[in-house]
Amino acid sequence: MARQPRLHEFRLIEQLRRAFGRTGAAVARGIGDDAAVIAPPKGRQMVLTTDLLIEGVHFDLRTASFEEIGYKAAIANLSDIAAMGARPEYALVAIALPASCTTPRILRLYKGIMGACRPYRVALIGGDTSVSPNKLFLSLTVTGSVPAGCALMRSGAQAGDLLYVTGTLGDSLAGLALLSHGRRRATPSLTSSERKFLVGRHRRPIAHPGLGQLLSEHRLASAAIDISDGLSGDLHHLCEQSRIGVEIDAAALPLSPALQAYARASRTDPVALALQGGEDYELLFTVPPAKRRTLHRLARRAGRRLTCIGMIRPEAFGVRVRETTGRLRRLPVTSYVHF
Amino acid sequence: MARQPRLHEFRLIEQLRRAFGRTGAAVARGIGDDAAVIAPPKGRQMVLTTDLLIEGVHFDLRTASFEEIGYKAAIANLSDIAAMGARPEYALVAIALPASCTTPRILRLYKGIMGACRPYRVALIGGDTSVSPNKLFLSLTVTGSVPAGCALMRSGAQAGDLLYVTGTLGDSLAGLALLSHGRRRATPSLTSSERKFLVGRHRRPIAHPGLGQLLSEHRLASAAIDISDGLSGDLHHLCEQSRIGVEIDAAALPLSPALQAYARASRTDPVALALQGGEDYELLFTVPPAKRRTLHRLARRAGRRLTCIGMIRPEAFGVRVRETTGRLRRLPVTSYVHF
Repeated sequence: MARQPRLHEFRLIEQLRRAFGRTGAAVARGIGDDAAVIAPPKGRQMVLTTDLLIEGVHFDLRTASFEEIGYKAAIANLSDIAAMGARPEYALVAIALPASCTTPRILRLYKGIMGACRPYRVALIGGDTSVSPNKLFLSLTVTGSVPAGCALMRSGAQAGDLLYVTGTLGDSLAGLALLSHGRRRATPSLTSSERKFLVGRHRRPIAHPGLGQLLSEHRLASAAIDISDGLSGDLHHLCEQSRIGVEIDAAALPLSPALQAYARASRTDPVALALQGGEDYELLFTVPPAKRRTLHRLARRAGRRLTCIGMIRPEAFGVRVRETTGRLRRLPVTSYVHF
Repeated sequence: MARQPRLHEFRLIEQLRRAFGRTGAAVARGIGDDAAVIAPPKGRQMVLTTDLLIEGVHFDLRTASFEEIGYKAAIANLSDIAAMGARPEYALVAIALPASCTTPRILRLYKGIMGACRPYRVALIGGDTSVSPNKLFLSLTVTGSVPAGCALMRSGAQAGDLLYVTGTLGDSLAGLALLSHGRRRATPSLTSSERKFLVGRHRRPIAHPGLGQLLSEHRLASAAIDISDGLSGDLHHLCEQSRIGVEIDAAALPLSPALQAYARASRTDPVALALQGGEDYELLFTVPPAKRRTLHRLARRAGRRLTCIGMIRPEAFGVRVRETTGRLRRLPVTSYVHF
């Protein structure tokens, strides 16, 4: 029943409000009240997602900076919004801080969060702060909006649809491996720019709300999910929700030159890295064949790299990979552990 | 870079979806996708709040049950929604679970959350789950809606307005004291029903969204806040945001008979308990004198207890208490520590 002044917390909230708060036509009330008040955009549905990041589970303070932790927490949420085909709009940040977190560190964490949000003009409208008994704990809620009826679900894929992915796969996992102890010596043939590319893909992944909106607004995708737990794990979610099977073409998986160099240097299978690598934050989506040409035209115009990596099959087919040898094998459900 | 199947987590999410998920006209997509999709109600603004509860800071697993922890986490959020004059609608739950949390315990926690939400038909639409290295972390986001322009802010109070509070104050703090070690022996004269009442007020507080909506929809309150950190602390927030002072009438503070009995038995000042007791989750609000009669009429019709406990003064007046002796004293900023 001890009581203590919490002026420190109030000062922090005031600093955050000044640095990152925004009010305007759509935000009637931001940081500093019991709750935020916003005007939802007309004719649109709201999209809401929450993601947790916990020290010792999702990040390690010995290898990640405070700004990077904040940045990646925001990207995880923005990527979920992108996977719904929605435009990200608002963020609420709940954070529990161990005693070792000084105010400059906390501000760097928020700088990371808002750095990831800035390209999309996402406003920080609220949150909660608390002390933590030991570990740093971060929970973000991000909202967005999508034209009514246009949200991309995991459940709409049908046999015959084409399976697409944005960008390249496995880079983040290779970057994480390079950051881990002892891997530098194991891959002496990697150039420093390859190293930098892969580590950068792990430390500063990007989300794809622009492409997500293109897919939803032009009604191109029948289903979508983002790759946070690894292609293999997230593909299984898509299959489960759409009640479909899928055939992945291993030879088609988009691999960056740096990942290929890493795989050679570390004597690992680049296809395995692409299938299991988490935190890519690329979009995985299905497209009816009749919409293929429109998709390619719009993606080219938007300057976005898309790759068709397989085809949706009936549920009984399961989830299988066509290897480069032509052999078809089952893809086991694996899930990414963050470090 | 270990990888592990997370089937356990997927099973839990599926169980939660079956037990608590809801889809309908307003919920296009609930639990089980990258994000939830809802249709915001027409002509209304959205209200969003997030609250954290952390083991060792806000609750103690030795004295609180899992259901109680979930219940109180939800009440903290529902009370914030009530303080905006809004109708609570949706909840997202982010939760980090230590290894000791078995599935039945987790389900009891959610049962507590949804038990608090049920009277308001709040739907669980999403969240995130994770393991935790040691402590239990719980972060809830609750949304609601309010007719456009009617939200109650902390910032609208003006000198001359009357200061009101719902229910009675200090009960939760007394209940917490009774739960703490050794206090039973120190208060032998308390009856078991007094004890039960106070402990119940601590374990099962209630939120007041109905009254909040009455205040906003009839435009009765000029400002409002909920009492989560104690009357003293929350009153200071109200004063800061409205740039006003306040005079509290100590003799008018609503005290339950059980609290008065507790104060006598423990030789503590009941006014101090009422001023500093946290987790009351009562509403504190200001009303222009011209609206006083309408307020009383509507509150009586709704069967709600309201008490005028003071008056808003100019900012220079500060925050003062008129003691029963007639003496005016400054009220220091204190804040509640949860156990």
